[in-house]
Amino acid sequence: MSHKEISKAVIKRLPRYYRYLGELKEAGVERISSADLSSLMKVTASQIRQDLNNFGGFGQQGYGYNVQYLRDEIAKILGLDHMHNMVIIGSGHLGQALANYTNFERNGFQVVGLFDNNKDLLGTVVNGIPIRMIDELPAFLAANEVEIAALTLPKDNAKKMVPVLLEGGIHAIWNFAHTDLNLIVPKDVAVQNVHLSESLMRLSYNLKTLQEDASPADQKEP
Amino acid sequence: MSHKEISKAVIKRLPRYYRYLGELKEAGVERISSADLSSLMKVTASQIRQDLNNFGGFGQQGYGYNVQYLRDEIAKILGLDHMHNMVIIGSGHLGQALANYTNFERNGFQVVGLFDNNKDLLGTVVNGIPIRMIDELPAFLAANEVEIAALTLPKDNAKKMVPVLLEGGIHAIWNFAHTDLNLIVPKDVAVQNVHLSESLMRLSYNLKTLQEDASPADQKEP
Repeated sequence: MSHKEISKAVIKRLPRYYRYLGELKEAGVERISSADLSSLMKVTASQIRQDLNNFGGFGQQGYGYNVQYLRDEIAKILGLDHMHNMVIIGSGHLGQALANYTNFERNGFQVVGLFDNNKDLLGTVVNGIPIRMIDELPAFLAANEVEIAALTLPKDNAKKMVPVLLEGGIHAIWNFAHTDLNLIVPKDVAVQNVHLSESLMRLSYNLKTLQEDASPADQKEP
Repeated sequence: MSHKEISKAVIKRLPRYYRYLGELKEAGVERISSADLSSLMKVTASQIRQDLNNFGGFGQQGYGYNVQYLRDEIAKILGLDHMHNMVIIGSGHLGQALANYTNFERNGFQVVGLFDNNKDLLGTVVNGIPIRMIDELPAFLAANEVEIAALTLPKDNAKKMVPVLLEGGIHAIWNFAHTDLNLIVPKDVAVQNVHLSESLMRLSYNLKTLQEDASPADQKEP
């Protein structure tokens, strides 16, 4: 089943629905009205109905949404209904932090390998996974079914890693390096860039804007 | 000077311009045409002209953009023209990874304090900064000018931390916990959420969509 007709904006919001439905499920909530979900998520009820109607009639008039069912359906749409094996390339603090996120596994992402080029890390075990040297990566990818590679490397190393990953059959890259890897991979490879510096700059901008709003000296002429 | 008239979409793109202009500057490039910047960033030249025209006449017909000048102007808009002091609450792998990002400092963000509630971390020094215990935070915030708090904590601890931060005069929260802190802070506090699990789910969705596109069995009826 293809969902190409669904807008990017809706897809972008789905993980957030998934997270809230997971929290509701954990709290023992079996069903929820769009009004209650709306006040919880601070999104209008009409936005919620519109978003979820994209995927057929999950909600019933006067009953609301079945939390478990809706969560399962969103999981299917996001491809979370089966386990994705992931390797992490770059086993410094960030790589190790990702390897320790138990949340990922709960959501269908299993870290199966950790790699680095720093020999001091050889023998270190993180969350049950031994750190391997980067030259073992091609053989590892050939021997294991791996879908996703997370890159927590300096940008030049990340770029150099791309052909190795493609050769090894990787079709999804979760990129933390300060470079837009989506610009250099073939079209059939999914890339999600996480540019932490840019997120911090947006925070800085918002902080500045709020400070300007609060400062009477900066108020505009009428 | 207020920039409220600038659309959110433009603001979202500015950090990326800033990054590319920084790379050009490092490479010794003094000026660049919108056509060249366009092919580098894979954005249309007209989009670039439109975006940058928001901030006045940085470009000159037949000359292009002065890289250093344009970068400095974007820095001012983003509030990167002065140093922001930041504390990191939660000094596990992710917190330590953030403390080690030299990139942040180059962009105007200085980590001045690291905090945790794990006594085993007391005495650990990361990038020159000693990890302090969380009960020292109020006194630290009273004694130091700190604008930003990065929260790399479990979600319940992150929520509990908010009143302490507000009390300490923090006006910007960079939140890595799996909760939408923007929903629980006053309006004059800037929050930027980094939800890593959601980014990974978007990658999973894109991977699934690409796989469906590649599989003839999933092609739609004509």
